[in-house]
Amino acid sequence: MSNPVEEFNAYRSKMNEKLLADNNKVIKRIFNLDTNAYAPGALDVKTKELLGLVASAVLRCDDCVKYHLESSFREGASKEEVMETLSIATLVGGTIVIPHLRRAYEYWETLEGIQG
Amino acid sequence: MSNPVEEFNAYRSKMNEKLLADNNKVIKRIFNLDTNAYAPGALDVKTKELLGLVASAVLRCDDCVKYHLESSFREGASKEEVMETLSIATLVGGTIVIPHLRRAYEYWETLEGIQG
Amino acid sequence: MSNPVEEFNAYRSKMNEKLLADNNKVIKRIFNLDTNAYAPGALDVKTKELLGLVASAVLRCDDCVKYHLESSFREGASKEEVMETLSIATLVGGTIVIPHLRRAYEYWETLEGIQG
Amino acid sequence: MSNPVEEFNAYRSKMNEKLLADNNKVIKRIFNLDTNAYAPGALDVKTKELLGLVASAVLRCDDCVKYHLESSFREGASKEEVMETLSIATLVGGTIVIPHLRRAYEYWETLEGIQG
Amino acid sequence: MSNPVEEFNAYRSKMNEKLLADNNKVIKRIFNLDTNAYAPGALDVKTKELLGLVASAVLRCDDCVKYHLESSFREGASKEEVMETLSIATLVGGTIVIPHLRRAYEYWETLEGIQG
Amino acid sequence: MSNPVEEFNAYRSKMNEKLLADNNKVIKRIFNLDTNAYAPGALDVKTKELLGLVASAVLRCDDCVKYHLESSFREGASKEEVMETLSIATLVGGTIVIPHLRRAYEYWETLEGIQG
Repeated sequence: MSNPVEEFNAYRSKMNEKLLADNNKVIKRIFNLDTNAYAPGALDVKTKELLGLVASAVLRCDDCVKYHLESSFREGASKEEVMETLSIATLVGGTIVIPHLRRAYEYWETLEGIQG
Repeated sequence: MSNPVEEFNAYRSKMNEKLLADNNKVIKRIFNLDTNAYAPGALDVKTKELLGLVASAVLRCDDCVKYHLESSFREGASKEEVMETLSIATLVGGTIVIPHLRRAYEYWETLEGIQG
Repeated sequence: MSNPVEEFNAYRSKMNEKLLADNNKVIKRIFNLDTNAYAPGALDVKTKELLGLVASAVLRCDDCVKYHLESSFREGASKEEVMETLSIATLVGGTIVIPHLRRAYEYWETLEGIQG
Repeated sequence: MSNPVEEFNAYRSKMNEKLLADNNKVIKRIFNLDTNAYAPGALDVKTKELLGLVASAVLRCDDCVKYHLESSFREGASKEEVMETLSIATLVGGTIVIPHLRRAYEYWETLEGIQG
Repeated sequence: MSNPVEEFNAYRSKMNEKLLADNNKVIKRIFNLDTNAYAPGALDVKTKELLGLVASAVLRCDDCVKYHLESSFREGASKEEVMETLSIATLVGGTIVIPHLRRAYEYWETLEGIQG
Repeated sequence: MSNPVEEFNAYRSKMNEKLLADNNKVIKRIFNLDTNAYAPGALDVKTKELLGLVASAVLRCDDCVKYHLESSFREGASKEEVMETLSIATLVGGTIVIPHLRRAYEYWETLEGIQG
């Protein structure tokens, strides 16, 4: 039985595989960089995922928001931390972020529900 | 029997309630500000709603466009006024606004149809 | 003796003339459309200039903001009307609009000072 | 039997007709300009379509991407040329372009499949 | 003897005072919210400032970047933490962020130099 | 005796060196990717530079526009080709691109003047 998190991840994986198989060197390296940028460093992984989340939210990329919500969840971010992150996004990015905030909140609830 | 306007409003209301119940002070205040900003002042409400509409259209936020189309409709904006507003959005924001213009036009037709 | 308004207009005019002389048909027509879009119609010119102003502000284009501030000023928009327009821009577009708001406020003061 | 390409084109045509019938002069002229801008000139049509594609991709407009993918396809652009174009979009526009890249890749596959 | 940090802060303070004195209620409340959003909560102030920094960088707002660089500096963020934050901004936002990265780096050097 | 092209390149080189010396791996790799993406492939270098130019123009990044104008110039792009590219940017991105178009035109004139 499928849910929004699984559906998102299935499509994402399927298309990422095709894109990587396509062998465009620049695209492949950008995909690799994505892994590097969120690895532990001076900042821990959870903080980096929250940085990715706020960047995705102000740029209003729903799929990117979903991705970083899931990673933040896995890294043990609390709902309060996620909501503070999204509140900064809404303040910096303005009320046009609100529709994305609604969808983010719903997705977070699904993530919590799956685990629960 | 549901229609696109009711569906949009139902989801919007349900998620806004959850967001407000979540008690993040910054998000709650931004929601309140939204009410303030479109209240009558030196400019009347209809003009303010058209300002909200053009801002939403150039920022290409379909949900925000829908919201301001409905408020503009309720404030008695004519189709000509709405189309002039959207034409300024398309000129200032460029042809990337056109897909949003198509969806806005369709939504306006639904609004007129419901009333008709 | 030059001031920020004259400097802006002088550079703008000089470069617009060069661009139009260059004879790229698409660019010339976009320049013409700009005149059309702000002509009186179902909405009056002042309202259209305020629509242009809010669109320019949320897209954070300082030169476009200056241009529409000057046209709004010429059309008799009051400071209160302009500030309400810019407050909607700041709410919809977020705190990243604030640096542009500071510059807009300063430009408006110059416009009022020239007339005074 | 419908497919994503036909569905997109059917909706696009239906709404464009309505928008043009609505007789807003500015919107009609922007639609006309769109035809002009991609006509052969110093640059050939295929190159211009790739320019439209990269612009659409960095501005993250899925419908605009689909439109230019189809035109590029009709102009004989190869998959390699399209992927190099999209790789530049992803580099210039960042990883937020990636969700649009996934959908673009899928749409291109549909275009190739229809012809095949 | 003035420097870029002092100049930026002087202009910022002068114009913010004028904007607040202007008494537009929406603008005043947005300014207040800005203080609230970066106050300690589930996340500490330094993390929140880095969230503000990455949001400002992907939205390519130089003045916002400067502001959050200075606050991050005051909160004791190290250069490595700031650079990791800006590297995420550059990856998510793309190479168009690079010119802002250059200016951010220069501003950070000034901040370190003043303290040194 | 300095000119706008030399000034731009001097600042750009100085800061890029500092950024690369700073040793943030993600930033260094993004800089490398930039070189890769514009190398000859299925598309020739001139076409790729024009793709970079249109992407930079619709995203309204003046420094990126300058960079790709100079590379396009070096690759032998004619003024007509550059203007057609910028006309597509202005149509797709809207009239907010016009201030950047004015500065791009001026920069191109400087490039031609230096060579002349």
